[in-house]
Amino acid sequence: MKLLDTIPKNDGFHMPGEYESHAGCWMLWPERPDNWRDGARPAQQAFTAVATAISRFEPVTVGVNQRQYDNAKNMLPDNIRVIEMSSDDAWMRDCGPTFVKNAEGIVRGIDWVFNAWGGLVDGLFFPWDKDDQVGDKVCAVERKDCYRTKNFVLEGGSIHSDGDGTVITTEECLLSKGRNPSMSKNEIDHNLCQYLGCDKVIWLKRGIYKDETNGHVDNICCFARPGVVLLAWTDDESDPQYEISQENYEILSNTVDSKGRQLEIHKIHTPKPVIITKQESEGVDSVDGTLPRAEGTRMAASYVNFYIANGGIVMPLFNDEKDEAAMAKIRELFPDREVVGILAREILLGGGNIHCITQQLPSSIT
Amino acid sequence: MKLLDTIPKNDGFHMPGEYESHAGCWMLWPERPDNWRDGARPAQQAFTAVATAISRFEPVTVGVNQRQYDNAKNMLPDNIRVIEMSSDDAWMRDCGPTFVKNAEGIVRGIDWVFNAWGGLVDGLFFPWDKDDQVGDKVCAVERKDCYRTKNFVLEGGSIHSDGDGTVITTEECLLSKGRNPSMSKNEIDHNLCQYLGCDKVIWLKRGIYKDETNGHVDNICCFARPGVVLLAWTDDESDPQYEISQENYEILSNTVDSKGRQLEIHKIHTPKPVIITKQESEGVDSVDGTLPRAEGTRMAASYVNFYIANGGIVMPLFNDEKDEAAMAKIRELFPDREVVGILAREILLGGGNIHCITQQLPSSIT
Repeated sequence: MKLLDTIPKNDGFHMPGEYESHAGCWMLWPERPDNWRDGARPAQQAFTAVATAISRFEPVTVGVNQRQYDNAKNMLPDNIRVIEMSSDDAWMRDCGPTFVKNAEGIVRGIDWVFNAWGGLVDGLFFPWDKDDQVGDKVCAVERKDCYRTKNFVLEGGSIHSDGDGTVITTEECLLSKGRNPSMSKNEIDHNLCQYLGCDKVIWLKRGIYKDETNGHVDNICCFARPGVVLLAWTDDESDPQYEISQENYEILSNTVDSKGRQLEIHKIHTPKPVIITKQESEGVDSVDGTLPRAEGTRMAASYVNFYIANGGIVMPLFNDEKDEAAMAKIRELFPDREVVGILAREILLGGGNIHCITQQLPSSIT
Repeated sequence: MKLLDTIPKNDGFHMPGEYESHAGCWMLWPERPDNWRDGARPAQQAFTAVATAISRFEPVTVGVNQRQYDNAKNMLPDNIRVIEMSSDDAWMRDCGPTFVKNAEGIVRGIDWVFNAWGGLVDGLFFPWDKDDQVGDKVCAVERKDCYRTKNFVLEGGSIHSDGDGTVITTEECLLSKGRNPSMSKNEIDHNLCQYLGCDKVIWLKRGIYKDETNGHVDNICCFARPGVVLLAWTDDESDPQYEISQENYEILSNTVDSKGRQLEIHKIHTPKPVIITKQESEGVDSVDGTLPRAEGTRMAASYVNFYIANGGIVMPLFNDEKDEAAMAKIRELFPDREVVGILAREILLGGGNIHCITQQLPSSIT
């Protein structure tokens, strides 16, 4: 459990693609009543469904605050490992470690600086000190040495790696004033390559409309394999999402990856706008400094926010007429994986989705 | 991480001797100011010395309450795994799991009911709910299935196993009113055999004079190997310890172990009485319901309370003229191990010693 201050790329480490082999999956347990309605009980049921689905494919560990330990143990099935771990909220993708791997199969963590998606500029709650320690704590449990980035703020949901030299991100997030305002785009690009062990960063512009994370890439675009991307899409020109998706499509069409490949782009249509109801809004505690969940707010619903497990995909559904087409598209792109859909409205209500609440631990298989 | 309600002995499991091969050692981190003087800072230094010494021989994990996480991480060396784990105090031997093993090398935990050494009868503090969950949590981190005993109160420090069919304990503790008052001695004997997978229990009478655990065996007598025991001893007839040690010597001399062996008994002389000073007493917060640390109180100092690691022994020293003889005796009995002495007064001040704050995880080597 050494804390490393060297550079992963220089040490021969890179971030594998999520579709590469996993040793397991990490999650956190939702509880804060100022973000999750009805004392987080419906969210806990949804998280349980996600954890249960993933545990069919690979070992799952759920970190939980001490006061929720009994409840989490009782709600989660026996085959899921429940570990006490303090957090401020439940977004393991963003506050947890990003794992990198070398040619010998050694896996290490990167413990990014976490500031609740924007710190004092436009962060979503305060304080975030417990979330910021999650990366370190996960690495300790897994006995993985860990890189701690110095003054470099990043969330795991704002990057995707193809595992083959290319990383994708969004300007909306990585160039936001609440992350690394003193760094230029070139410096951030360089840092991503150094830490993720990649040679090229593809910069999309914006993420999903109304995404409170400042447009994390993991809600709008991901790799299905090297050279192949999925992009959240709409044909509805009256939807603000239309222009965002078009713009990103142009970028993806006019770039090559680090290996010189033109990208094969698959469009996956978003559901119709998902809106917070009066009942949902009223179920959330109102606390100064935490983003409110107001009735009538459009949520950042997207099918791209799925988790790739060993031999499976666990993807969000929204009880929408596009659910079926989205599942079919994912099945087509991942023909060797079983696709499991989870009704994810309760997760979305908290501000993210299935990919945001999970983090893969790569296996040591080379 | 299954919770098992079967019986270890029926499943082919037994408790190995501490001198058998370990996968590692678990400890907790002291902090409560009503038990440890000066905000637990001196105790933390002593625990750090113990953890550091053991980590030379085998991997060490220290569980720590969230509020002490930073401090523990900063005090403990990098090679020690620090894991968040709530506890009421820091006696891993007693609130942690006891591990059992089968012929294939599979290791499982036993999560005894823990009631702070006597519950509402004569327990040492209240409440003890977090300590009672430590066994379960350690098993989860180690991915070990776990037996939970039903209504059977026991602390790991009240038993020693020779790994070869025999367990040793004391009547003072196991027949105390604060443990299992509704069970007869025969029933308790039977339970020990069922859970620890042994065939014979040797019942000593009393533990070390003034031992607040109701006379845990691990402070007065232990196995050096099957058929060989160490017994804390004094030749001073004016010392109340004299009669206690004589009585136990008689018992040990007139019994055989489960294999029919007569026991080889080695005496290890206790240090001269170790007394709480005014300064020490004044450093401890006074809280109703927690055992006070009054000036002039004699502490239960004994050299028997050592930890056997892979290739090493970590034993308590007291700055006493008998320290050298005790180390020599231990070296003689464990010729293949390096013996490391630690000045342990600060641990003793909290009510126990090195064996009490450690718990071995057996290796899967058969």
